[in-house]
Amino acid sequence: MNAELVWRDIERVRDDAPLVHNITNYVVMNSTANALLAIGASPVMAHALDEVEEMVNIASALVVNIGTLSVPWIESMFRAADAAKKRGIRIVFDPVGAGATRFRTETAREFIDSFRPTIIRGNPSEIRALAMQDSLTKGVDSRHETEAALAAAFDLVETYGSVVSIGGEVDRIVTSDRIITVANGHPMMPRVTGLGCTATALTGAFASVDPSPFEAAATAMAVMGIAGEMAGEKAPGPGSFQVEFLDALYRISEKDVRERLRAAEENRG
Amino acid sequence: MNAELVWRDIERVRDDAPLVHNITNYVVMNSTANALLAIGASPVMAHALDEVEEMVNIASALVVNIGTLSVPWIESMFRAADAAKKRGIRIVFDPVGAGATRFRTETAREFIDSFRPTIIRGNPSEIRALAMQDSLTKGVDSRHETEAALAAAFDLVETYGSVVSIGGEVDRIVTSDRIITVANGHPMMPRVTGLGCTATALTGAFASVDPSPFEAAATAMAVMGIAGEMAGEKAPGPGSFQVEFLDALYRISEKDVRERLRAAEENRG
Amino acid sequence: MNAELVWRDIERVRDDAPLVHNITNYVVMNSTANALLAIGASPVMAHALDEVEEMVNIASALVVNIGTLSVPWIESMFRAADAAKKRGIRIVFDPVGAGATRFRTETAREFIDSFRPTIIRGNPSEIRALAMQDSLTKGVDSRHETEAALAAAFDLVETYGSVVSIGGEVDRIVTSDRIITVANGHPMMPRVTGLGCTATALTGAFASVDPSPFEAAATAMAVMGIAGEMAGEKAPGPGSFQVEFLDALYRISEKDVRERLRAAEENRG
Repeated sequence: MNAELVWRDIERVRDDAPLVHNITNYVVMNSTANALLAIGASPVMAHALDEVEEMVNIASALVVNIGTLSVPWIESMFRAADAAKKRGIRIVFDPVGAGATRFRTETAREFIDSFRPTIIRGNPSEIRALAMQDSLTKGVDSRHETEAALAAAFDLVETYGSVVSIGGEVDRIVTSDRIITVANGHPMMPRVTGLGCTATALTGAFASVDPSPFEAAATAMAVMGIAGEMAGEKAPGPGSFQVEFLDALYRISEKDVRERLRAAEENRG
Repeated sequence: MNAELVWRDIERVRDDAPLVHNITNYVVMNSTANALLAIGASPVMAHALDEVEEMVNIASALVVNIGTLSVPWIESMFRAADAAKKRGIRIVFDPVGAGATRFRTETAREFIDSFRPTIIRGNPSEIRALAMQDSLTKGVDSRHETEAALAAAFDLVETYGSVVSIGGEVDRIVTSDRIITVANGHPMMPRVTGLGCTATALTGAFASVDPSPFEAAATAMAVMGIAGEMAGEKAPGPGSFQVEFLDALYRISEKDVRERLRAAEENRG
Repeated sequence: MNAELVWRDIERVRDDAPLVHNITNYVVMNSTANALLAIGASPVMAHALDEVEEMVNIASALVVNIGTLSVPWIESMFRAADAAKKRGIRIVFDPVGAGATRFRTETAREFIDSFRPTIIRGNPSEIRALAMQDSLTKGVDSRHETEAALAAAFDLVETYGSVVSIGGEVDRIVTSDRIITVANGHPMMPRVTGLGCTATALTGAFASVDPSPFEAAATAMAVMGIAGEMAGEKAPGPGSFQVEFLDALYRISEKDVRERLRAAEENRG
């Protein structure tokens, strides 16, 4: 993970304040909007069929997240993605809960098949659920969770040309010929709702300013992990963690980036 | 209130991380998900007609809350509750705003009549609004609010076999032959939105791990009250109260439970 | 800005706890409910066509905010506003995103034309987008943003008899023969999502207790600015700002009001 690239992306977001159009779930609308504002981007949440195309036309990236999916929203997600493709802005897709219900798995697969998102970001089980080869999605021993998710990611990269960003204790960002691993983070992060969705929203912000979607996806996970460490060192519980996390996104410095990326890589050995 | 039972339930939730399926209102989706995570449970929010049955099938309890009710959600609530009955998992119901509009009162009554929820949790006026005998719901002098709510609770217990959990300065958990009172809590709690809904969500978590729904409902109110006291001692206002409250849910210890339950009971005299 | 009037309105809200019925956007439902509770009002969020009239009938003011507008919600907003007009309670309208899409601009214009809201509160570009004269909404040099918004506000005041409250670094509250300016506030406020929507919700609370909607609108902006200053002096970032802001709404004193209004006016010179 290259600290200079991460810092360059942070500075670009702070300078440009890119408008990120989110069609996301009810649980995280407030927290992801706040994370985007804290890092320096401009969030807009808009889901009406009647306006998503126009909103896409003033946005720098489209983030689609299926966390509280329902039928009326699907049509808006598809219309917005269609407009994003036509206009050539990047699409970041988070298949929240894919694998848990057929409704989510099928909608997610159809979305990916229709729009070949620039970046797909999810946890290992969600990424596995998206892979078209059933051998990748069934009967996987949990010891082999990481390997199965990586195999599914390569499948998605090959089929759709997407970058795949897999969250976890170690994040893995996958493209056709490279993997970046990010080992930053804090154990309290899974105890705060929606931090995965926040990672996806920030991925949209960085994808708005970095010519390489692969680097943008990696920057987002690095920033999440670094801000998570900064918050975790101060917070005695998940309530204060959320507060400190937003403050960390706002305050993160070049020194934080450089030192914490190096420390995490050294710790992994 | 038995401190050992409360602590045993907390440890079980922390060990088992039960999946609690919430069909709840927009206002509290984020805060109740965070409270469930802080105490150690796994929340999922899902309301689409197309997936609620499947989601119920992987959940340990179903929580239904009508706080921002609308017609499309009612069908999902009923379908999910139907699946929960078939599968034999517990249903916790919060009739938010029953009594305020006919739409809520009638929907709540129909829900209870159809599914006989394991636990009904609400404030005194909501519980009164659910009682089928009009004499219990009309023209009640506010001095007799508690008595009227208790009478309505007994009516619901008798008719539906539900446990009824009535929130307030003193919480009362009612079953056919017993009442548990919980006197813990803090005056700032009504100044934070959705803490009643949080109590209902936690009731779902404890009902997932305790064989007795009556004890689970009492544990939830005890935990709310204890965490409220811990937060209130540190927080100068409702903003910091929310933060401290989540931290307290995360940090609550056996000693906190034992000492604070005893203190509250002694204070009541 | 008269400190005595501001303090009188705060005391009235704290004494009366007026019920403010909000039909608002998903992003801010939680944060505006908490702000209303912190200042001492009673929020209710209800949007179902089946109950908005009944809810209006027990409310002291109706706040309509189009931040995540969709077609099913429009009908409820119109039905609620119709009931509010019939009952004679005040309507506060926030045209979030007017000007960004035709859907929002047209819905907002139709709402205003149908109901002549007591108070219209938005940012300068939203207020400009509402003005019926196209000359006011197009091709405005950003140096003349304030002038253009003021011209649009006077147009709205004249056509509809509404008070217009324009947020910004300096807030301007406009009626037919007077403008109040409020120079309080803090640079971190735009980095927290939904503080504009919070200003609108508080405007609803103060409009419930102050006979003059013009003074109520000004009080709301003064309270926002003062609480923002109190929060900004303590908060190192936007996460802690939110927490401190709610605490400040809860704790704001007559001395805070008097001293901070005076200081802001002296600083403007």
